[in-house]
Amino acid sequence: MTNPTAAMLVIGDEILSGRTRDSNMHHLAGELTRHGIRLMEARVVADDHDDIVAAVNALRARWDHVFTSGGIGPTHDDITADAVAAAFGVPIGPRADAMALLAAHYARAGMEFNAARQRMARIPRDARLIDNPISTAPGFTIGNVHVMAGVPNIFQAMLAEVLAQVTGGAPLLSQSLTVHRGEGEIAADFGALAAEFPDLSMGSYPFVRNGAMGTNLVIRGTDAGRIDAAMTRLAALFGTP
Amino acid sequence: MTNPTAAMLVIGDEILSGRTRDSNMHHLAGELTRHGIRLMEARVVADDHDDIVAAVNALRARWDHVFTSGGIGPTHDDITADAVAAAFGVPIGPRADAMALLAAHYARAGMEFNAARQRMARIPRDARLIDNPISTAPGFTIGNVHVMAGVPNIFQAMLAEVLAQVTGGAPLLSQSLTVHRGEGEIAADFGALAAEFPDLSMGSYPFVRNGAMGTNLVIRGTDAGRIDAAMTRLAALFGTP
Repeated sequence: MTNPTAAMLVIGDEILSGRTRDSNMHHLAGELTRHGIRLMEARVVADDHDDIVAAVNALRARWDHVFTSGGIGPTHDDITADAVAAAFGVPIGPRADAMALLAAHYARAGMEFNAARQRMARIPRDARLIDNPISTAPGFTIGNVHVMAGVPNIFQAMLAEVLAQVTGGAPLLSQSLTVHRGEGEIAADFGALAAEFPDLSMGSYPFVRNGAMGTNLVIRGTDAGRIDAAMTRLAALFGTP
Repeated sequence: MTNPTAAMLVIGDEILSGRTRDSNMHHLAGELTRHGIRLMEARVVADDHDDIVAAVNALRARWDHVFTSGGIGPTHDDITADAVAAAFGVPIGPRADAMALLAAHYARAGMEFNAARQRMARIPRDARLIDNPISTAPGFTIGNVHVMAGVPNIFQAMLAEVLAQVTGGAPLLSQSLTVHRGEGEIAADFGALAAEFPDLSMGSYPFVRNGAMGTNLVIRGTDAGRIDAAMTRLAALFGTP
């Protein structure tokens, strides 16, 4: 368990109302796994200042990294940057480099760089900007908290930049075996195998396909040799991988 | 804000590793909105006893209802029922009615009702069973916490039973307007309108379609007349609904 740890904080009423289905959490989970960072917890909160502050502080105290999505646009419901500044107890205001980026972007587009758009240059003191190659308005990293947009393609671009700069861990590997039996039939042997390999994580995920029950057995860890050894035992118990 | 409130707790390593994309949260969000219950917060935690206990206790203390998904099957990584019992400080053990349901189910199927399957009859004291019309193993409600399966079709069936029994609130209504302008262009007027209707929730969600920027403006509330009034104003500002 020497891999760095992380949490995600999804910010937005639209997720909780059911209007929008979040896709950033699943994307982040996969990217972190590839990068050797363990996603330990995720939370979704509404566009509420106090709730965002409380969640940011709970998560940044416990895990190595916190990745947030949502709430950094120009409208009145975009309150993430202010809440993150409050969580860190630092001032927030328009920042020259962010203002310059945005001013140039809107000049190129022939669009007015109005007060609402200038709000997107408000950055907590001492934060580092995260580049937004799609619509310019930057995210930022402050301490161990990476604040990114909620629009999926922008979130993905910002995340790629952040992950290029943070130190990952040994890749988190997994192998799986599909067995055409219900979970209840394999549970005893699978549990005994898991107890023999306490350094690996073993999970079972039941499914029904064409009316027949089956189970995906997944073994996760960082040591490829140990996973191979466990998979060999698994195949001997339940079938051919 | 007289509607009941709720939180969701998704339990499972497979969501955090990126192996499985959760779909229960989005389903729950939509069903609760239809039922007049406000989903205020959601969390995803790993298959870790202490983390589940802490999340259950944090969420049940703050919100009217807590809906959990995952971790109630027969394998070693199914630890939700024990963790929920620990959160409430009550004992857990095999319960006669759940044992009878499961024994009959496996007898009908000609399958052995073995020790692993009997684990699924372990229910915290004083809980009420939630029927599982798909694979029999029940969920349960204890206090304000509704413990359900993670397999989506079973989660959905259990949720339908729970929602038929809990008291909802006034339906949570929403209307939306799509404008073919960026958020930054409508932000000032939209924010001013939101300030005039503090009883409604207004959100803006940008998108890019065929290379052109647009924004979905959404107004949510429980008073249809007020939403109509705000939509009329919105249409006058930004276009025809």
